[in-house]
Amino acid sequence: MTTHSLAEPAIFARRESEARSYCRSFDRVFTRAVGSTLFDRDGRGYIDFLAGCSSLNYGHNDPDMKEALIAHLAADGIAHGLDMFTDTKQAFLEAFEKHILLPRNLPHRLMMTGPTGTNAVEAALKLARKVTGRQNVVAFTNGFHGMTLGALALTGNASKRAGAGGAGLGDVTRMPYAGAFGAGVDTLAQVEMMLANPSSGIDAPAAFILELVQGEGGLTAASADWVRGLADLARRHGALLIVDDIQAGIGRTGGFFSFDGMGIEPDMITLAKSLSGFGLPMAALLVRPEHDIWKPAEHNGTFRGNTHAFVTARVTLEKFWADDAFAATVAEKADLLTGHLARIAAHLPGASLRGRGMMQGIDTGSGVRAAAICAESFRQGLIIETSGAEDEVVKVLAPLTTPVAQFEEGLAILEAAVLATGSQQIAAE
Amino acid sequence: MTTHSLAEPAIFARRESEARSYCRSFDRVFTRAVGSTLFDRDGRGYIDFLAGCSSLNYGHNDPDMKEALIAHLAADGIAHGLDMFTDTKQAFLEAFEKHILLPRNLPHRLMMTGPTGTNAVEAALKLARKVTGRQNVVAFTNGFHGMTLGALALTGNASKRAGAGGAGLGDVTRMPYAGAFGAGVDTLAQVEMMLANPSSGIDAPAAFILELVQGEGGLTAASADWVRGLADLARRHGALLIVDDIQAGIGRTGGFFSFDGMGIEPDMITLAKSLSGFGLPMAALLVRPEHDIWKPAEHNGTFRGNTHAFVTARVTLEKFWADDAFAATVAEKADLLTGHLARIAAHLPGASLRGRGMMQGIDTGSGVRAAAICAESFRQGLIIETSGAEDEVVKVLAPLTTPVAQFEEGLAILEAAVLATGSQQIAAE
Amino acid sequence: MTTHSLAEPAIFARRESEARSYCRSFDRVFTRAVGSTLFDRDGRGYIDFLAGCSSLNYGHNDPDMKEALIAHLAADGIAHGLDMFTDTKQAFLEAFEKHILLPRNLPHRLMMTGPTGTNAVEAALKLARKVTGRQNVVAFTNGFHGMTLGALALTGNASKRAGAGGAGLGDVTRMPYAGAFGAGVDTLAQVEMMLANPSSGIDAPAAFILELVQGEGGLTAASADWVRGLADLARRHGALLIVDDIQAGIGRTGGFFSFDGMGIEPDMITLAKSLSGFGLPMAALLVRPEHDIWKPAEHNGTFRGNTHAFVTARVTLEKFWADDAFAATVAEKADLLTGHLARIAAHLPGASLRGRGMMQGIDTGSGVRAAAICAESFRQGLIIETSGAEDEVVKVLAPLTTPVAQFEEGLAILEAAVLATGSQQIAAE
Amino acid sequence: MTTHSLAEPAIFARRESEARSYCRSFDRVFTRAVGSTLFDRDGRGYIDFLAGCSSLNYGHNDPDMKEALIAHLAADGIAHGLDMFTDTKQAFLEAFEKHILLPRNLPHRLMMTGPTGTNAVEAALKLARKVTGRQNVVAFTNGFHGMTLGALALTGNASKRAGAGGAGLGDVTRMPYAGAFGAGVDTLAQVEMMLANPSSGIDAPAAFILELVQGEGGLTAASADWVRGLADLARRHGALLIVDDIQAGIGRTGGFFSFDGMGIEPDMITLAKSLSGFGLPMAALLVRPEHDIWKPAEHNGTFRGNTHAFVTARVTLEKFWADDAFAATVAEKADLLTGHLARIAAHLPGASLRGRGMMQGIDTGSGVRAAAICAESFRQGLIIETSGAEDEVVKVLAPLTTPVAQFEEGLAILEAAVLATGSQQIAAE
Repeated sequence: MTTHSLAEPAIFARRESEARSYCRSFDRVFTRAVGSTLFDRDGRGYIDFLAGCSSLNYGHNDPDMKEALIAHLAADGIAHGLDMFTDTKQAFLEAFEKHILLPRNLPHRLMMTGPTGTNAVEAALKLARKVTGRQNVVAFTNGFHGMTLGALALTGNASKRAGAGGAGLGDVTRMPYAGAFGAGVDTLAQVEMMLANPSSGIDAPAAFILELVQGEGGLTAASADWVRGLADLARRHGALLIVDDIQAGIGRTGGFFSFDGMGIEPDMITLAKSLSGFGLPMAALLVRPEHDIWKPAEHNGTFRGNTHAFVTARVTLEKFWADDAFAATVAEKADLLTGHLARIAAHLPGASLRGRGMMQGIDTGSGVRAAAICAESFRQGLIIETSGAEDEVVKVLAPLTTPVAQFEEGLAILEAAVLATGSQQIAAE
Repeated sequence: MTTHSLAEPAIFARRESEARSYCRSFDRVFTRAVGSTLFDRDGRGYIDFLAGCSSLNYGHNDPDMKEALIAHLAADGIAHGLDMFTDTKQAFLEAFEKHILLPRNLPHRLMMTGPTGTNAVEAALKLARKVTGRQNVVAFTNGFHGMTLGALALTGNASKRAGAGGAGLGDVTRMPYAGAFGAGVDTLAQVEMMLANPSSGIDAPAAFILELVQGEGGLTAASADWVRGLADLARRHGALLIVDDIQAGIGRTGGFFSFDGMGIEPDMITLAKSLSGFGLPMAALLVRPEHDIWKPAEHNGTFRGNTHAFVTARVTLEKFWADDAFAATVAEKADLLTGHLARIAAHLPGASLRGRGMMQGIDTGSGVRAAAICAESFRQGLIIETSGAEDEVVKVLAPLTTPVAQFEEGLAILEAAVLATGSQQIAAE
Repeated sequence: MTTHSLAEPAIFARRESEARSYCRSFDRVFTRAVGSTLFDRDGRGYIDFLAGCSSLNYGHNDPDMKEALIAHLAADGIAHGLDMFTDTKQAFLEAFEKHILLPRNLPHRLMMTGPTGTNAVEAALKLARKVTGRQNVVAFTNGFHGMTLGALALTGNASKRAGAGGAGLGDVTRMPYAGAFGAGVDTLAQVEMMLANPSSGIDAPAAFILELVQGEGGLTAASADWVRGLADLARRHGALLIVDDIQAGIGRTGGFFSFDGMGIEPDMITLAKSLSGFGLPMAALLVRPEHDIWKPAEHNGTFRGNTHAFVTARVTLEKFWADDAFAATVAEKADLLTGHLARIAAHLPGASLRGRGMMQGIDTGSGVRAAAICAESFRQGLIIETSGAEDEVVKVLAPLTTPVAQFEEGLAILEAAVLATGSQQIAAE
Repeated sequence: MTTHSLAEPAIFARRESEARSYCRSFDRVFTRAVGSTLFDRDGRGYIDFLAGCSSLNYGHNDPDMKEALIAHLAADGIAHGLDMFTDTKQAFLEAFEKHILLPRNLPHRLMMTGPTGTNAVEAALKLARKVTGRQNVVAFTNGFHGMTLGALALTGNASKRAGAGGAGLGDVTRMPYAGAFGAGVDTLAQVEMMLANPSSGIDAPAAFILELVQGEGGLTAASADWVRGLADLARRHGALLIVDDIQAGIGRTGGFFSFDGMGIEPDMITLAKSLSGFGLPMAALLVRPEHDIWKPAEHNGTFRGNTHAFVTARVTLEKFWADDAFAATVAEKADLLTGHLARIAAHLPGASLRGRGMMQGIDTGSGVRAAAICAESFRQGLIIETSGAEDEVVKVLAPLTTPVAQFEEGLAILEAAVLATGSQQIAAE
């Protein structure tokens, strides 16, 4: 048990909004971070299994990105250029084309939206509606797509939705995600029946939007068959397929995209979080060229194109995605993770594994239990969070670059925390 | 007349979305920027009277901010910390309290929203609705508040609204801004009549949201009397007053806030653009404590709190706002600007001045004419843009730190461009 | 002062919803009615200056309509025929064409909607949106168009709007009616400015909908100039003009339509209330043929086409509208009314006249005062009601067929009631 | 094969809107009707198995109702009394309490809404939202609830929904009706899962609204178990249960209400169609007293309370519902119908029976086939219509009072039509 040397600095309580959240679970003042370790003001290190909610897939302060960014600063490179042409944007786009799009034979263009995931989602929504002339968009149970009004309408979480204060969250139809009604129910067939029935009351959709692994919704992963079936269904019904790869993309599930190897080609793909690689705000919407019917500035934003992020993002592409080596190490680490989690879950009656790749977790069956595990983990030096409708899943989102030894150290803390809390009386149960 | 040595690099046409816009007017590849000058790949310098649409009020690559950011990087300071406590956030908040809030006796708290202006606006909307239990929000003609669905509903521009593709832009009532019906019509009295009449069909509003100078809508400035009247009206009708200070705030009109000295205290204030001072994505919502009823994470976002931006933002507060000296220089420069613009406008029959502070422009009465002036300015080495419902206003948004000599050089180019285009045949007129 | 022999029968309190209203002001059980007189269970007669809110413009139980309806019943004529062809519908349509449409050179078709005014309004809304491909509809301050969700969105009254329980009342923009901002303000010019400004935030409207005299909103009458200006403005902006003539039409303001003689030709006209002439439920939407793009049954309803109402409606057309004689008597009576009301209003400091034709009233400036006048009138044997945002207008809606002597008798009661209440202390003032 | 002596009278094509529909299938001019027979202008009789879409459950021109209505007219009874107290309304309410409410121990009050079913549905929606403070209402696949905007949002049919012209049909969630996903899928369990999952994205509902037999949606009948389960689920989730009994109620399925004998007590019940018994426009909303929180006139309407309809409706209650005899004859006739339909369906490969009580039909599996059967039936003297998402169900809606011999005569025509069309080539198949 650690002794906290400092209380929460008074300035936060005095001047930061009640909306703040992670600082409540991890109540230290952090000052420095390298790789998979965060250091607090007292110099104590914490293994980071949260990774900025998958925004730090390459760890903290990667030395190559850091060097490139310092060089950019030193040379008075552009820090902010609206959406003007810059050499840094050019280099980023060229690298993205070379290392990501061409190897996958993807014809997509990049729209640099405002640098938040929710902004990329909003752009996708608008464009899908413009392209199809339809208003309705199908989102899925337990989906999470952002907090601005259009994206929030797609988001399932009731407490997040309550934030709208009663404003209309319209033009969205909710459908059951893969497995939503249990293993025996083919939800895709039901979606099909709803769309095929002209009296179902479901208006023809502009698009389907989904995450392939539901990062906030409980780490449920749709199977490749289900995803292919949905892509086919969307095509037959004249709807676009939007993959929200903000959390599950950029290596998190193994490939650069969460759908790599599934044989689908989404009409649009949203990216954010780890896109810059350094944790800098950056987001993009990938769009098939035939759908790129925007008028200039029809969807704009002051910070679209964060030039510093272009610098670091280019480094990620050249360093990690020029060949298959990195993906292979992620796959190995994912197998390792599965094995460890299976062993840890065995300590928890009724627990089961969720997710895939480096986006796995344990469904503990109880939000109270999961919270206790995370709190104990933090006491032992591990930063880890929950997911799910009831926050019942303990979610491992370690940097993909975490050294194996440190990864196992973190998992050992998790196991110890499970064992420690398992013997406690869980109050709310 | 310049010879462009390079065409638009092919990668942009091939892989960047048609939504791109500024690069169409300023079709050079920029590589470096210092102070108020942008340099293209050929080394040609351009005086910057756009300043990232007021995101670079302190100019490009301010040496103190740059030094602080390099030091932060070199020390492996946190780049991304979600909304955890960090030393950089603490230092920023303490500086903001000391230099901005306390001198103005403002009790507000800061909510670090996703780092785009539109996100701060969305947060304000949600909170105003939660606080009042009302859905309707009053926005004004020619207002511009962002591109995500909630903020877009507040935005007046028809072509931007069309981007929604037919999705509902609801829960908003439009009212006439100051002067919207001509000098003789008291629009505030009309707003009052609409709210006082129980059969007007205007549902009781949760909030009024407005810019004090309409940055995109044509640089119309509301008088202090009008603003005070609106604040009073809002209070009497139980509605919150939200000042959107994203473009007009942070020194642009002289004070840190556009309402400094007007004797009002808005319930909420949105900030973005020049908040980081370096052009880095950053946004905040200032909220009176009694309205700060958010539940933890009720409005969240991965990039809320851009740590690099905290570093540079703190520098801005200490360097420019620790005393009144900077504001005094801005006021002097604003007077200079008024004088020059009056002289330039005299060349244009029917033209008139708009705006206040360092946010002034010339209403040329014609979008075609204004575009021609800006294009000719660019040819002569000045980056400047238009504003207004018909893009009819040439808008000067120079960095506030622009040296007087360079400022006058830029204005001389503008005058030359006005004279050059004035003798041309304006096709569409 | 009358003694009421009977309390409200208990069955009403026990089994009729709290929504009931007129029975609260006129708390007698009525059993019989002839012409302009209603009789209660005790045989006491009341002069009817409410006329079913203008549904009984030809009085109660007109002997010719009654005879025709009894004959229809005796012959087992169709009572309910959905929208099948019947001889009664044929005869009604032929009479409507002959006596109403052809003399006015109107090309319109009739759509027999569900037999309520609100249903005709809903049909008009749908069709205007289908025809133009636009969603926004402009309605005016103090407008009243019905209680179903689409029509309620058009209705200004706050307490009626509250009935929606928070459901969205969307796709409507509110504009100031003629005179809404006082005599000196040209509201039409303001509407024009809002539509002409592409940054006003007012989406291009599918239609304008208005009453020419606002029956519930306080009897404000738009001038012919204002109406013509609006018709012109609508045409220029590609919007349809919908005149809601449910209360002001069918003779109430003199001509069959409230716009007779104004030189406009609305795209659509809604009719209900006095259309059947006998008080039977009936409504219709008149549509210019080029806008009649309905698919069969696209807007349907079980009771569209009330056959009994066709029988009596045909009688009204032949009896009252075959020549100008009836309209001439209405005009005379309207002049009489103006004179009487002017004299009565002179007893009330600050009072003024409102309305035109047989749709006039006195704005007493106070809902409390107006209610007291109506209550005292009822005690003296006159049924009369209020109108206006604050219920401040005492509204005379006598049957158009009221004999002059009885009309003057009713007005004498009104005057007596004004004098009687004028000397009372008005509590709320 | 009949020779039609008259073409459609020209006035209809010239002056009646394209929205007209039934007259297209049954292209005769009807002039007279008695019991279950309609007569055209040439005197030809047609057996009526449509019965005004269940508005004429007691047949045409019932002699007792006719006599009462003629007497009312002869005595100058009130024809239109807004919602004032009248002796006819009193008698109706007393009869409704005595014969309907008290025997079922129902505490409900009656709200006399505008005399269309859709108006009763709109009133129910508003009240449910007011009572619960929630906006979302759950409607079911293939449900049909009316054509005004609020009711249309509940209605599943795509072509009807298209009538809205793009206006928002919001605040409604669609759920699968009983059997919507096939016999093996428990849709109620799925509804429960959606409501229980706080991340499902389904906002807590104000109400569930459903028909117990879907009159327009294809005659699917929910089992008593399913209905009871839904009632229980609604209660547990704080939502009201609204039974829309407009088509299935008032004897159509045997009891006065479609839920008689199921052991549920809906919070609200909508009635219209056969409520007056004579085909006169009339509608009502039954509300449990604790939910009757309307303010006076909060939902109003000129024709609420059609006095003529009160006269005939009272006769229906005394004549048909004073004891169980009538219900017993309906039950017998329903059994007869089931037998006949089973025999007829056997001629159609793949056909199956739908519905219950006197609301049964044959699912022919093809809209083309069903239309051919109805057209051939009409040629042979039988008026009958289709139902279902694809109009694939031939629906028998004979008056409940049809004499057995005539009922069998009609069914014989139907069988002959099935046989005649079965041998034809069905073009579209």
